[in-house]
Amino acid sequence: MTMRAAVAGASGYAGGELLRLLLTHPEIEIGTLTGNSNAGRRLGELQPHLLPLADRVLTETTAEALRGHDVVFLALPHGQSAEVAEQLGPEVLVVDMGADFRLKDPADWERFYGSPHAGTWPYGLPELPGARAALEGSKRIAVPGCYPTAASLALFPAYAAGLAEAEAVIVAASGTSGAGKAPKAHLLGSEVMGSMTPYGVGGVHRHTPEMIQNLTAAAGEPVTVSFTPTLAPMPRGILATCSAKAKPGATAESVRAAYEKAFADEPFVHLLPEGQWPATASVYGSNAVQVQVAYDAAAHRIIAISAIDNLAKGTAGGAVQSMNLALGLPEDLGLSTIGVAP
Amino acid sequence: MTMRAAVAGASGYAGGELLRLLLTHPEIEIGTLTGNSNAGRRLGELQPHLLPLADRVLTETTAEALRGHDVVFLALPHGQSAEVAEQLGPEVLVVDMGADFRLKDPADWERFYGSPHAGTWPYGLPELPGARAALEGSKRIAVPGCYPTAASLALFPAYAAGLAEAEAVIVAASGTSGAGKAPKAHLLGSEVMGSMTPYGVGGVHRHTPEMIQNLTAAAGEPVTVSFTPTLAPMPRGILATCSAKAKPGATAESVRAAYEKAFADEPFVHLLPEGQWPATASVYGSNAVQVQVAYDAAAHRIIAISAIDNLAKGTAGGAVQSMNLALGLPEDLGLSTIGVAP
Amino acid sequence: MTMRAAVAGASGYAGGELLRLLLTHPEIEIGTLTGNSNAGRRLGELQPHLLPLADRVLTETTAEALRGHDVVFLALPHGQSAEVAEQLGPEVLVVDMGADFRLKDPADWERFYGSPHAGTWPYGLPELPGARAALEGSKRIAVPGCYPTAASLALFPAYAAGLAEAEAVIVAASGTSGAGKAPKAHLLGSEVMGSMTPYGVGGVHRHTPEMIQNLTAAAGEPVTVSFTPTLAPMPRGILATCSAKAKPGATAESVRAAYEKAFADEPFVHLLPEGQWPATASVYGSNAVQVQVAYDAAAHRIIAISAIDNLAKGTAGGAVQSMNLALGLPEDLGLSTIGVAP
Amino acid sequence: MTMRAAVAGASGYAGGELLRLLLTHPEIEIGTLTGNSNAGRRLGELQPHLLPLADRVLTETTAEALRGHDVVFLALPHGQSAEVAEQLGPEVLVVDMGADFRLKDPADWERFYGSPHAGTWPYGLPELPGARAALEGSKRIAVPGCYPTAASLALFPAYAAGLAEAEAVIVAASGTSGAGKAPKAHLLGSEVMGSMTPYGVGGVHRHTPEMIQNLTAAAGEPVTVSFTPTLAPMPRGILATCSAKAKPGATAESVRAAYEKAFADEPFVHLLPEGQWPATASVYGSNAVQVQVAYDAAAHRIIAISAIDNLAKGTAGGAVQSMNLALGLPEDLGLSTIGVAP
Repeated sequence: MTMRAAVAGASGYAGGELLRLLLTHPEIEIGTLTGNSNAGRRLGELQPHLLPLADRVLTETTAEALRGHDVVFLALPHGQSAEVAEQLGPEVLVVDMGADFRLKDPADWERFYGSPHAGTWPYGLPELPGARAALEGSKRIAVPGCYPTAASLALFPAYAAGLAEAEAVIVAASGTSGAGKAPKAHLLGSEVMGSMTPYGVGGVHRHTPEMIQNLTAAAGEPVTVSFTPTLAPMPRGILATCSAKAKPGATAESVRAAYEKAFADEPFVHLLPEGQWPATASVYGSNAVQVQVAYDAAAHRIIAISAIDNLAKGTAGGAVQSMNLALGLPEDLGLSTIGVAP
Repeated sequence: MTMRAAVAGASGYAGGELLRLLLTHPEIEIGTLTGNSNAGRRLGELQPHLLPLADRVLTETTAEALRGHDVVFLALPHGQSAEVAEQLGPEVLVVDMGADFRLKDPADWERFYGSPHAGTWPYGLPELPGARAALEGSKRIAVPGCYPTAASLALFPAYAAGLAEAEAVIVAASGTSGAGKAPKAHLLGSEVMGSMTPYGVGGVHRHTPEMIQNLTAAAGEPVTVSFTPTLAPMPRGILATCSAKAKPGATAESVRAAYEKAFADEPFVHLLPEGQWPATASVYGSNAVQVQVAYDAAAHRIIAISAIDNLAKGTAGGAVQSMNLALGLPEDLGLSTIGVAP
Repeated sequence: MTMRAAVAGASGYAGGELLRLLLTHPEIEIGTLTGNSNAGRRLGELQPHLLPLADRVLTETTAEALRGHDVVFLALPHGQSAEVAEQLGPEVLVVDMGADFRLKDPADWERFYGSPHAGTWPYGLPELPGARAALEGSKRIAVPGCYPTAASLALFPAYAAGLAEAEAVIVAASGTSGAGKAPKAHLLGSEVMGSMTPYGVGGVHRHTPEMIQNLTAAAGEPVTVSFTPTLAPMPRGILATCSAKAKPGATAESVRAAYEKAFADEPFVHLLPEGQWPATASVYGSNAVQVQVAYDAAAHRIIAISAIDNLAKGTAGGAVQSMNLALGLPEDLGLSTIGVAP
Repeated sequence: MTMRAAVAGASGYAGGELLRLLLTHPEIEIGTLTGNSNAGRRLGELQPHLLPLADRVLTETTAEALRGHDVVFLALPHGQSAEVAEQLGPEVLVVDMGADFRLKDPADWERFYGSPHAGTWPYGLPELPGARAALEGSKRIAVPGCYPTAASLALFPAYAAGLAEAEAVIVAASGTSGAGKAPKAHLLGSEVMGSMTPYGVGGVHRHTPEMIQNLTAAAGEPVTVSFTPTLAPMPRGILATCSAKAKPGATAESVRAAYEKAFADEPFVHLLPEGQWPATASVYGSNAVQVQVAYDAAAHRIIAISAIDNLAKGTAGGAVQSMNLALGLPEDLGLSTIGVAP
């Protein structure tokens, strides 16, 4: 019983990646595609890599256009999802790929996003403790941010096992697609090739409260997060280098065991064999997450590193994975752990 | 009725890409994997992007190891396929991804490869006139070179329609994976990033006689080819800029019509709408070929440009496409026209 | 006796590169810097690599602001130089880095640029026959386009020596800085990394008539040019692969001899030893030009390939070299043949 | 009074960069160049960007060959410098660009390098407290590692001012030239383009004790360092993201003031205006260091970030800067704060 899915925001990078995945999903038929400034244009111009959809034409993003689908994906700028979602019936599965419904604490939302809080939906990171159950059968899904996906998966096992002190330091490098498709001078190829540069330093990046929320839940105590995002000269991928001081009694063995246990049954998270380290190239286009962990005895720190594809597992793949759970389909349907490399 | 396929040379780039495609091919089960200098190693180390095969171990490349499969793919250095192929029975489908059986003229082979000619097998570029029929039911396939795939698809329609003079000029840019995985100083990331450089200039590149063979067959008269390959700072992709003087009477319209006719029913070759030009990023990881053609009235030349993924359509995807024909399967089974972008 | 130079358009890539060179030029003091949309901003924000100029503030581009300098460089959009130049006295050396004064034939200008022809100034490519003399002491200089610089230097020796037929085929790959700093979606890092794509195909690129003008002058007969520019995933550099059919009687030796003669006394053009090929990385940041030439006996073609830095020798370096000649300074003053690599 | 300098290891990346700088140094004449496996080869083949040295031929690295120079630079693999240095007289200035003489604690050396400690020379990072005085007039210089240069400059002001707790967390991204020119599969362009990957995780990288030594000296108490290096898809550059918990009483203002004071008179370290962040592209080819610092009140951490060119300030530029001090020349002679961008 195939379901029809609409995608609002089909001309951007998140929307494009979602379409790439939905095209090979056996239970989804692609319905209406919208894109405001690009309404009226052929997808062949906007997403030339999606050959089977080349002749599709984008329409305006209205609740009207999105109605009559079983699933509606919202790949809209932050703050626009709530209004659209309200106009879709409670029987429609709405998957928000923006930030609007991720945060539980309205104060956090207001501080970081500067607008009234729209609410909180089940959080689409099934690997977190308790998350899978909340997603099963849900009609609303808040897809996590790309950085929180990478960082939370890297660190939650250490917190869930009570091995890490409540102060996390996260430095992550992201490919440029994470910054979107709107043309800006600092994102020009001439500027980004050959350059690494940080941004949103000092606790001001909007993904910070989301990481705090996830790690605090895993730890059962308030965790602070120092998060520094950096822009790397590659189109896709996030490498998150995360660390926290080890609690007394933690050992290399207990740390390794915690990670093995956390990911033992996970279809997408691959704890690498000891000695092998994550690489974003290995998960290019894939929904897989590579994780590795080390215990630095001299610095008394646990260092956990993850690599994801920011557009796949970090956005559209995570969205499809959660959609599968919400629809009662196998969690990995239409998703792959095979990357495109080199 | 699933068939078992062995891959000789599974640790290289061509072998890795082939495995990536075979993993999702519905009629193929992956059997023995070999790799000489890497025999005994886990594929998880060598091809970390192929997560489902991570625990497979490579064996030595021997006829013994390759026997008992329905299909054997040879991704070996030039000159090694013939010996292995001889020891495999005539009932086995052998797909040679090397150069050994591509050229018809033994003199060409000897001049460019410096060793005795092993023979000629049906040529695995189904889009060429007559090629598809020769592949159907065949037990031997010579997969074309990556540059000849790109250049022949760009130019053969002009020659088949009698619109182009018999002197072709081809300048192609290739990603570095075309140069293989053996470590060489000039292929280091430090050397290739930020640099474009030619090699094999002046008619000495081994893919030249293969292009001549294909275009001469299409033209029905001897075609000369000036071919200049260049190394581009990207991992994958070939952009082939091909041109030839137009024959008297050729017009922009007759040129366009020839290309529309040539590719009308092709599942993988996409003649772009006028005004849109091929980009290697659009076919990243895909078996699609983007082609565009222009007629330059001032210079009296036809300029035809194609973009392919050198490892996909240019090697492993072309191999699977031809295998499908040889096995009587739908030609596009297990292959995709969807790229991974950005 | 130091001279003062103003730069109109100091916030773009050409202007920035010019300032980089002028900063170390022993006879130039940097005066007024202008930049329309960026007027009022610190150069430290706009060109953060030019640390010694960080506190300079841009002014509006007016004739007023530019007056009172010995040299005025115009790095303005095409069509804006003429108006500014008119208002500067005949005693001021005006160096136009735009296209306005490059073409001799008004019809060419109007066809390719769509506006009335402003005139023709001495052409700033000293290596061309006769060009150096015209530049010495001149008060007006038209800096060549980046592609014409690369292509003309690669091919003129073959034409000047009467070795090449009058139909040239030029395929060039350029780094993205050639497309400027104005933000456009197709120039985003996410789009250009990993991709090669052509543009301006079929004789429509504005640099075509400039190449024709240069090669026709060298050949002493009308030369046609088929020019295809491609965008390469690197910030800087042009690799121009140029070829023409050899005239009867041309040999590998006569071709080599012609190139050795043409560049024997050139301070910036380096004819590589046989067997070594140009690479854009080798001329990164340098005013050097690497050239190599081959004769393909089978295709009867001369293949000449050059590598330049599009912003240095291709724009700002060429401008300084010509300025030196105009001012009676040593031609290589303040210029370097040392690249930054890797 | 020009001095003659010999370079041992002139075919590698550090040696090449050193030659690039020495070529424009007004007081240095380039003497003997050595390179073991490349002895007998022209520099034009090995360092094609150094056009003025193209015809120089490398000799074997022997004390004999290096004698008779005023300055000898050793760009040799770790462990080889001591033997060569011993054979050079005390009147020769020997600048070791390897690690042999950096560490003060023999136990640290033995643990991280696995061989007997050769000694300790004045440490070539003049910006560190007390370092400049030790370098002036010295006849032996130990050039710092590239990562310790970036990390120490980013963090020492916080420690010197008593503002940071004694546990530093450093995550740095380096361009691939830091890994050298010896061909290795994981450094191929095909592998590194599009990929970020860590290595030497968990306190095992050899630059860790060097950072500890520098920060401990600045703090006046033992500092632990958690250091994670990552390989970034760019040829050059290091971005070091460094942080430490703030000591009670530290404020955004006191942190900023400490950095302003530390770098007020430094010719090469540029504390960026608030709101602007370091980018490796801005220091490409330059000896400048970009530093910025933030205080994260929520996480109670000081985040200091630096960008350097790993081959310039991180190796060869640092070497020349220290050489200038040792020779009594102006510290910035022959060095530049101008980067090549974009």
